[in-house]
Amino acid sequence: MEALKQRILKEGIVAEDNILKVDSFLNHQVDPSLMHEIAKEFRRLFADTNPTKILTAEASGIPIAMALSFEMNLPMLYAKKSKSNSLDGEVFHREIYSYTRGETVDIIVAKKFLTPDERILIVDDFLAQGRAILGLVEIVRQSGAYLCGCGIVVEKGFQSGGRTLRDRGVNLKSLAVLDRMNEDGVVFR
Amino acid sequence: MEALKQRILKEGIVAEDNILKVDSFLNHQVDPSLMHEIAKEFRRLFADTNPTKILTAEASGIPIAMALSFEMNLPMLYAKKSKSNSLDGEVFHREIYSYTRGETVDIIVAKKFLTPDERILIVDDFLAQGRAILGLVEIVRQSGAYLCGCGIVVEKGFQSGGRTLRDRGVNLKSLAVLDRMNEDGVVFR
Repeated sequence: MEALKQRILKEGIVAEDNILKVDSFLNHQVDPSLMHEIAKEFRRLFADTNPTKILTAEASGIPIAMALSFEMNLPMLYAKKSKSNSLDGEVFHREIYSYTRGETVDIIVAKKFLTPDERILIVDDFLAQGRAILGLVEIVRQSGAYLCGCGIVVEKGFQSGGRTLRDRGVNLKSLAVLDRMNEDGVVFR
Repeated sequence: MEALKQRILKEGIVAEDNILKVDSFLNHQVDPSLMHEIAKEFRRLFADTNPTKILTAEASGIPIAMALSFEMNLPMLYAKKSKSNSLDGEVFHREIYSYTRGETVDIIVAKKFLTPDERILIVDDFLAQGRAILGLVEIVRQSGAYLCGCGIVVEKGFQSGGRTLRDRGVNLKSLAVLDRMNEDGVVFR
């Protein structure tokens, strides 16, 4: 998606530890025009899979999922992240390590909102190692719902998440794939 | 806002500890039609304050802020919540106690996105004691930006947050105010 790539080249900042900061338009401050373009592109890529619900994980996936929810007029569901202290039998959950928080958290979805008759489209802002997305994929499979696919805004192609998901047969589409990044900037695949 | 009140009466569940669960349409699963109606109402209530940016805190405020961002075509900014471990001089932050997490966290906004020439409209899903909103209000005041007001979807009128904010001169508008709630349900003011 060319508008996204141009925006990353213009405003993205490569920080230490292979972090690409895009907090001026994607995951701190959010540009509604770009979100609308991203949502239109995901709609184009996934409309023929006939999703009935959009799924993401808090927090940075929510703007994208909300934009796509408006674009496709489908309910949106966001998994909560919580320390495992109050789980009951009414939720699906997966333990993942959160780099942002520096701790292991559970991603949690209420069973009543994820039933076998649903067709689920997962979206998120970044795919690197893929821990959060893999957790969501496993939750969808456990629920018996159909997984339409995963839509990612920025995939770090030099990390393993994308390959792992494709190896598992997930219909993964990324709007921008980074081949590498260093202090000089990013290179797209 | 009548459509919101009807939805709360129909689907809201009063749980122990004065919790109103509205996770079928507001803060776990999200209904885009209701979000659009909420955004239109906030636009009607706050358009004459001429905001230039929408501010909220992650995670449950983001769907509302994103909806309003689309409705008013304004950038949206969400404060991050983090344990205080990596703060530098480039952020505004306030320490708050998070009931959801059961721990004290910092709410954090990058200074570069909150400058004195901005006119800020804060939105959130719930107002109870008001800790998160008060933190956001203090951050806006520290930044020198103009505070247009606070738009709340559900205010618990029997808790102190609303009074505290109004006493501080904040232009606070809530779409539904609960007078009380118990096992029989909720009563609106």
